[in-house]
Amino acid sequence: MELLDKSIAAIKPLNTAVFEQANERLANQARPAGSLGMLEPVSARLAAIFGTLDVRLDHKTIVTCAGDHGVTEEGVSLFPQEVTAQMVFNFVNQGASINVLAKHAGAQVKVADLGVNTDFEADLPIFHKKVGKGTANFVRTAAMSREDAVRSVTAGIEIVNELKAQGPLDMLGTGDMGIGNTTPSSAIIAAFSGIAVEKLTGRGTGIDDAALANKIRVIETALAMHRPDPKDPLDVLAKVGGFEIGGLAGLVIGAAAVGIPVVCDGLIATAGALIACELAPAAKAYLFASHRSVEVGHRFMHERLGVEPLLDLRFRLGEGTGAAVAMELLDAATRVLCDIKTFEEVAIVDAQKR
Amino acid sequence: MELLDKSIAAIKPLNTAVFEQANERLANQARPAGSLGMLEPVSARLAAIFGTLDVRLDHKTIVTCAGDHGVTEEGVSLFPQEVTAQMVFNFVNQGASINVLAKHAGAQVKVADLGVNTDFEADLPIFHKKVGKGTANFVRTAAMSREDAVRSVTAGIEIVNELKAQGPLDMLGTGDMGIGNTTPSSAIIAAFSGIAVEKLTGRGTGIDDAALANKIRVIETALAMHRPDPKDPLDVLAKVGGFEIGGLAGLVIGAAAVGIPVVCDGLIATAGALIACELAPAAKAYLFASHRSVEVGHRFMHERLGVEPLLDLRFRLGEGTGAAVAMELLDAATRVLCDIKTFEEVAIVDAQKR
Repeated sequence: MELLDKSIAAIKPLNTAVFEQANERLANQARPAGSLGMLEPVSARLAAIFGTLDVRLDHKTIVTCAGDHGVTEEGVSLFPQEVTAQMVFNFVNQGASINVLAKHAGAQVKVADLGVNTDFEADLPIFHKKVGKGTANFVRTAAMSREDAVRSVTAGIEIVNELKAQGPLDMLGTGDMGIGNTTPSSAIIAAFSGIAVEKLTGRGTGIDDAALANKIRVIETALAMHRPDPKDPLDVLAKVGGFEIGGLAGLVIGAAAVGIPVVCDGLIATAGALIACELAPAAKAYLFASHRSVEVGHRFMHERLGVEPLLDLRFRLGEGTGAAVAMELLDAATRVLCDIKTFEEVAIVDAQKR
Repeated sequence: MELLDKSIAAIKPLNTAVFEQANERLANQARPAGSLGMLEPVSARLAAIFGTLDVRLDHKTIVTCAGDHGVTEEGVSLFPQEVTAQMVFNFVNQGASINVLAKHAGAQVKVADLGVNTDFEADLPIFHKKVGKGTANFVRTAAMSREDAVRSVTAGIEIVNELKAQGPLDMLGTGDMGIGNTTPSSAIIAAFSGIAVEKLTGRGTGIDDAALANKIRVIETALAMHRPDPKDPLDVLAKVGGFEIGGLAGLVIGAAAVGIPVVCDGLIATAGALIACELAPAAKAYLFASHRSVEVGHRFMHERLGVEPLLDLRFRLGEGTGAAVAMELLDAATRVLCDIKTFEEVAIVDAQKR
């Protein structure tokens, strides 16, 4: 628990003086007040994170955490478990969706193995943080031990610290790969919120009605059997979570601890962010929700987190794809705050001042 | 009418063979079918416009059309008319919102004077296309003559042709500047749709309840007095439109005529796009809606056009700011189609093929 506790304790509140300066500048820019909508509070929060009105997000990294899930035995996904490892190779070879969208956003992609059911060669250029070779089938037994839950979150924090040690890092994005992982993610939001599983569960990669009914039954059974304690996020993670979800939680805590913004992706990455913010509410100040996915449980996660996603492009892919696209908006927001001139600077009549 | 008629006749249908190839490639990419949501149809349509799967949007221009409005005499805006000209100088000096967001999107900004109530020096680096020094107050008389309506649309087409003559042009964005111009824009969608003015009219730059009630009354009075013919888009433009709105319509027709995509911005730019597509329905294939603005009439324009905006960031600024942000998504969409590998290319198990 040492690194986890230390990291949570290291999270600082934002710079309120700079936050106020940012809002004042936004209000004085030569345009109607509030007219750049959601980009305005985003830009002010980024300023408060970095303590300057001139934020530069030059070094962006998206970490895609991969893990396998024993619950795939229950037929909850359209794809077989082996695809998780195949996609890890696809990420490394730059051929996947996240590689393409991250490149467009000027971000690098780093893959992390938190729990893939494959032995990767040690020289594969990924973060080797395997906690186990896939979780247990949580409809039978807890997905992982409490110790492994701590280990997976800690691994996420370690990744941030290793990235920081490798060079400058201005913004982190989180993404996931793990066949079957919408099932633990829906279970996690159900455990925290108490909302009925059928309201929170979607079709993942595109399962049919019968498979969806089965997926709902699987989650209901697991929650009834394990009774995860919503006041104990590590208990929720251990009983119905996933190794990569723990890693994704660690990325959020790690980013907040080192004082950089973190952009979470879809259902699974947001499940990780939820675990992180239930463990460390102060991390929320550093968290940006990229998009609202097709997966119905996602909006309930955003509601619980109290964050509003920037995009709704009907993505349902994961990998960090939504985070990549949103990074372009966050980057644009930094320029909005800093570069748009004020009424005074350009000598234009300000309706508010007349 | 010569250039207008010629341009409408020059609009070609999209390349359906390439459109089908694009959709086939999207379906075969190593990710769940449809998982990149709205970016997929966008990428296929861009491919069909250019006749290739490898679309490169290297040369992007946003044209911000400016004009003044006699109806500002009625107190429909928070800002005085002189701000239109002041903002033209702000655009030229690169200090405005559109300059900042266009730069971020890798687009250049060109300003066009369609009808600003100021005599600009001939060497000011803008498109000098003044049709008149502001429209007439349309609550008293038609905003402009039918000849001036044709002149303003033709000016927009000329701008596209001049830009094309200056160098490569892969994508056009449309934006507006004109104090008071949400009033003619709401009047235009009311004239075409027959929907009640109070349902279509918003607060523009931020007017209060009393000013909003007055704005609604002004539009209702003008529509009752002039009875613009919804089957005759030039009649609508002449009676309750604006010079920059005519120019914005011409940009859409001009872009479609030369076979490049055009991204329309907020309420005013979309009013122009509506005039364009009512005149030339074939232009719609080249049109992309960037965002849904706070202005309530905007969604009714999108409905009538049958287009779905990519973004909803609660912008209500104009200038082309929403178009600029959306250009980044369109650019990303071209990479999605071309660069994400297929199941076959990366030898990954495809659930659909099992």
